[in-house]
Amino acid sequence: MRYARISVGGRAVWGRVGERDVELLSGSPLHGEPDVIGMLPVAGAVWLPPVVPPVFYAVGMNYPRHIAHAGAATPDRPEVGYRANNALTGHRSPIVRPAEVVGRFEAEPELVAVIGRTTRHASYEEARRSVFGWTIGNDVSARTWQHQDRTFWRSKNSDTFKPMGPWIETDVEALAQTTTLRVNGEIRASFPTGDMVFDPFDHIVAVTRHSTLHPGDVLWMGAESTCQIEPGDTVDVEISGIGVLSNPVHLEGNPS
Amino acid sequence: MRYARISVGGRAVWGRVGERDVELLSGSPLHGEPDVIGMLPVAGAVWLPPVVPPVFYAVGMNYPRHIAHAGAATPDRPEVGYRANNALTGHRSPIVRPAEVVGRFEAEPELVAVIGRTTRHASYEEARRSVFGWTIGNDVSARTWQHQDRTFWRSKNSDTFKPMGPWIETDVEALAQTTTLRVNGEIRASFPTGDMVFDPFDHIVAVTRHSTLHPGDVLWMGAESTCQIEPGDTVDVEISGIGVLSNPVHLEGNPS
Repeated sequence: MRYARISVGGRAVWGRVGERDVELLSGSPLHGEPDVIGMLPVAGAVWLPPVVPPVFYAVGMNYPRHIAHAGAATPDRPEVGYRANNALTGHRSPIVRPAEVVGRFEAEPELVAVIGRTTRHASYEEARRSVFGWTIGNDVSARTWQHQDRTFWRSKNSDTFKPMGPWIETDVEALAQTTTLRVNGEIRASFPTGDMVFDPFDHIVAVTRHSTLHPGDVLWMGAESTCQIEPGDTVDVEISGIGVLSNPVHLEGNPS
Repeated sequence: MRYARISVGGRAVWGRVGERDVELLSGSPLHGEPDVIGMLPVAGAVWLPPVVPPVFYAVGMNYPRHIAHAGAATPDRPEVGYRANNALTGHRSPIVRPAEVVGRFEAEPELVAVIGRTTRHASYEEARRSVFGWTIGNDVSARTWQHQDRTFWRSKNSDTFKPMGPWIETDVEALAQTTTLRVNGEIRASFPTGDMVFDPFDHIVAVTRHSTLHPGDVLWMGAESTCQIEPGDTVDVEISGIGVLSNPVHLEGNPS
């Protein structure tokens, strides 16, 4: 199944996405079994981030080739950081580059695990069962701010810096897929989605030793490769078996 | 006014807190003007965190004496980090020290600004108007983890490490108050709440240059002093004009 959140008359409505139509739902599939309350064509859908997480977890360096490229040490245990919900935006919505950004402005294509049940002290098998489904994230980063600032507050959490979507896919072997990053249709990176130092379930085991995960929490899993993006570009992150997250890049104050 | 969230039959209900009674409300005062739907005595209230923020902002080093004590550089501009909602707990609920924690386990008494309106590109005056009210936070920290880990995920965001409450006070000159930290009734720290390098409004101006603040977002403002806490202790953070946030400290697996 593919579950999305659609903007209908300015309101966020959950939907189940088919080939041609989206069935609109009475509530969140993360909290029960909603009824079908309407229908609209996929082509006309306005996509919101598929979930607004209670806690927005993000893994840093987690792909061996990314770590080697950065000259960083390979992590010896799973750790997590946080991102901020203000930065979330949906499929097809613009990534807005602030006018003040100088230096590299980059896309990072990431697998995202969406938690489906309240989980604490999970075994690896319980961690597998805690995942409701999978979506796609683009961890947009302004590198000069990332190096200048004490935290990632501006570099990774400015408004629109966290596109997520288009939907949550519940029936996919996420770690057996391929992640592809395209700019204006040209492939800029492609790597095995599952080629991670620690996989999502390793991270869930570690996190839930001390923290309770809740339905709707998301865990962004890091990227192997990144690429620069510019205003005027369209950036696509595809994960086979899940979908394509596509966003145009705008310059602040210049919305086209 | 003092607004709180109370647990009533396992459900979170907003309340307006008076001398003897809590008026239970039909909804959040952050989103409209709720009706009174019931009443219960203050003495019988089970206190929840007064808000679960869409984004949980935290300021680091922000008091000159704390910075001098730590031998750190004084920040030259306001910056923020993030904390995680799983760690929130209410007034009188236990802070649970994980069995694996070694080394210093500390309380940090903090003023908390609660945002009341959607705010972007705020002037200092708009920043003042964006604050709905003020509450109290205890930024409980496990120092060994803080030094060992790449992020603050375990050291500051384990379950129960972020007591907040007891309520949001809307009518107080928060920066003119005194913050007092007590352990088992004994004063361990006392400092002028407003003696900050950058005040809450400076931070809101800076944050909203790139990020939209939303109703319910919280901004924890840092502490001047900290003190060690042990299982069996009761730790109180008082800010004059707001109230007292009191929590017992338990050892994991030993709930008394």
